[in-house]
Amino acid sequence: MSKKILVVAGDGIGPEIVAEALKVLQALQADGSIDISLEEGLIGGAAYDAVGDPLPEETLAAAKASDAVLLGAVGGPKWEPLHISKRPEKGLLGMRAGLGLFANLRPAILYPQLAGASTLKPEIVSGLDIMIVRELTGGIYFGQPRGIETLPSGERRGFNTLVYTESEVERICRVAYDIAMKRGKKVCSVDKANVLESTEMWREVAIKTAADYPEIELSHLYVDNASMQLVRAPKQFDVMVTTNMFGDILSDCAAMLTGSIGMLPSASLNAEGQGMYEPIHGSAPDIAGRGVANPLATILSVAMMLRYSLDAAGAADRIEAAVSKVLDQGLRTGDIMSEGMRQVGTVEMGDAVVAAL
Amino acid sequence: MSKKILVVAGDGIGPEIVAEALKVLQALQADGSIDISLEEGLIGGAAYDAVGDPLPEETLAAAKASDAVLLGAVGGPKWEPLHISKRPEKGLLGMRAGLGLFANLRPAILYPQLAGASTLKPEIVSGLDIMIVRELTGGIYFGQPRGIETLPSGERRGFNTLVYTESEVERICRVAYDIAMKRGKKVCSVDKANVLESTEMWREVAIKTAADYPEIELSHLYVDNASMQLVRAPKQFDVMVTTNMFGDILSDCAAMLTGSIGMLPSASLNAEGQGMYEPIHGSAPDIAGRGVANPLATILSVAMMLRYSLDAAGAADRIEAAVSKVLDQGLRTGDIMSEGMRQVGTVEMGDAVVAAL
Ligand SMILES: CC(C)[C@H](C(=O)O)[C@@H](O)C(=O)O
Ligand SMILES: CC(C)[C@H](C(=O)O)[C@@H](O)C(=O)O
Repeated sequence: MSKKILVVAGDGIGPEIVAEALKVLQALQADGSIDISLEEGLIGGAAYDAVGDPLPEETLAAAKASDAVLLGAVGGPKWEPLHISKRPEKGLLGMRAGLGLFANLRPAILYPQLAGASTLKPEIVSGLDIMIVRELTGGIYFGQPRGIETLPSGERRGFNTLVYTESEVERICRVAYDIAMKRGKKVCSVDKANVLESTEMWREVAIKTAADYPEIELSHLYVDNASMQLVRAPKQFDVMVTTNMFGDILSDCAAMLTGSIGMLPSASLNAEGQGMYEPIHGSAPDIAGRGVANPLATILSVAMMLRYSLDAAGAADRIEAAVSKVLDQGLRTGDIMSEGMRQVGTVEMGDAVVAAL
Repeated sequence: MSKKILVVAGDGIGPEIVAEALKVLQALQADGSIDISLEEGLIGGAAYDAVGDPLPEETLAAAKASDAVLLGAVGGPKWEPLHISKRPEKGLLGMRAGLGLFANLRPAILYPQLAGASTLKPEIVSGLDIMIVRELTGGIYFGQPRGIETLPSGERRGFNTLVYTESEVERICRVAYDIAMKRGKKVCSVDKANVLESTEMWREVAIKTAADYPEIELSHLYVDNASMQLVRAPKQFDVMVTTNMFGDILSDCAAMLTGSIGMLPSASLNAEGQGMYEPIHGSAPDIAGRGVANPLATILSVAMMLRYSLDAAGAADRIEAAVSKVLDQGLRTGDIMSEGMRQVGTVEMGDAVVAAL
């Protein structure tokens, strides 16, 4: 049966990189490897500009009716002056909440072909392969009450609420443990249990839930120490699981350890296996429209989509192998360029992956 | 007039490293460079073990009556099973709150003699000198309401509150801007203004306050991007200013970029110039009592104390020069040991600094 994919390209380089990812999907469709139907939707600043809303109702409805969503990127300086409720990011957050995408998978993988791109010494990062599992629909991102109030004195006071229920923690821990069972069976849960009660409870639930996974080696780090350890010895980690806010910070830190964030995909899943897939890099407004953006993270996001939401692991493997092959061929976009390699643009890179499939 | 210093050695390696720092203070006292009187107090797990309270009333009272507090470190696995209100960390947090130490200064400096210790490539970190200014008595660390409640369903729910008033943000920004005026005049304010209203207000206040500092070049980063940029190109930063929680994470990340956190001091100041001084590394229970801990971060904390709270910048300079000299002499504790250097213990390192004064 044909699977429905909603494509929301978004802002900045979004449309350019998504176009290349679609070529890859269409090539797999053409050779009969997958059976999909594509629909397009508006999100982010592009949606705000078109209809005054970063997440139009039709987009969310179409997403709900799809098996998976492919997202480019949202945001840019153009929309920064807008009220927080109208910003492009609100489209992304609304999609996460609306689809219940509580599990965000962010691999930080160092491609051997790009080892030199890291700012860290080769022996520290070679072979790096961490999976960060970030809670995505709870915590301080969505907690109530929140806002900015004016005190009787006339002074303003801004506030947000970090909140987790036991079941929210349990379900994200299960996702992490299930993933770890297919990998190195090691999970590090990151919290600030020595200061924040909400994460003290997080740690308790992580431990309790692990009782169902006797083979998992569970460890715990305070978030400050985790950020140190990522810099000191990142290869000690297999799977990390943490809150929405800590996951935002640590996954970007981990991604940058590879030196090539233009290569890193992500998946955001709900309990039904529906997912939204996007590169972890942003909308890069400074290079938008110039045909130089790296489409590989988006193409690899398509691979994650095939694996996690479309039950097409074989096709996913082919995409990943094709990406590896174009790297072996020496093709590089500007962000991952190094001496002796051949610099190509967005379209040429996409075409090369299709050719290598 | 004699200045009063309260010494709270705390847990783990605390007593060992503080002993060496005291030698340095006493040497300066002996040669007439400073006029101080020392008092000792209990804090952390040691205080809990002795009197059942990680911050006994007498300790806080003595701290309030002092010009400065010298702290070793608190915490250890021994006290982890305790309720959050009795843990060693509570002693530290209580001291911060009790003295109103809202400004935490955390330098991340790469000593040229230790450049090889970094996990980052030399060209990325050589000459690194960042000052992180962390808000220390507000934000989610102290916000109310907080706790763990049981819902009608029987499920538990943990919650914490991130809260800032405009005046809290303004005063920490002023500290950062004042410090930057004596350095590179560049300040990067770190927030998550695209998601958290409290930090949207933070950014507004940072901008408004900067109007009084026309020479300061103020920039803003979202915290996830800041953690990336610290790994990608840390030398772009001069002074960073941020919330209590983000500062906890980013300052540890920045410290680890140097590869030698055993070298990094910190200062926590209140509006009256009273301060608490401590190494940024922890209590290292695994090596406690073995005479191998690096006392240099604590000794450099004494230098910060002399500079910021005791009006003795000359003596501070002498300590820093002495530390540099022992490094030039090739002396290294285990944590910063490298080939061709001479490995020494805690006491020998302290003695060498005194000799080099
Ligand atoms: C754009 C922003 C709202 C988002 C987040 O903070 O979750 C982004 O940083 C991410 O990590 O996907
Ligand atoms: C021990 C802990 C409470 C403390 C903090 O989180 O502030 C420590 O990590 C620090 O940074 O001084």
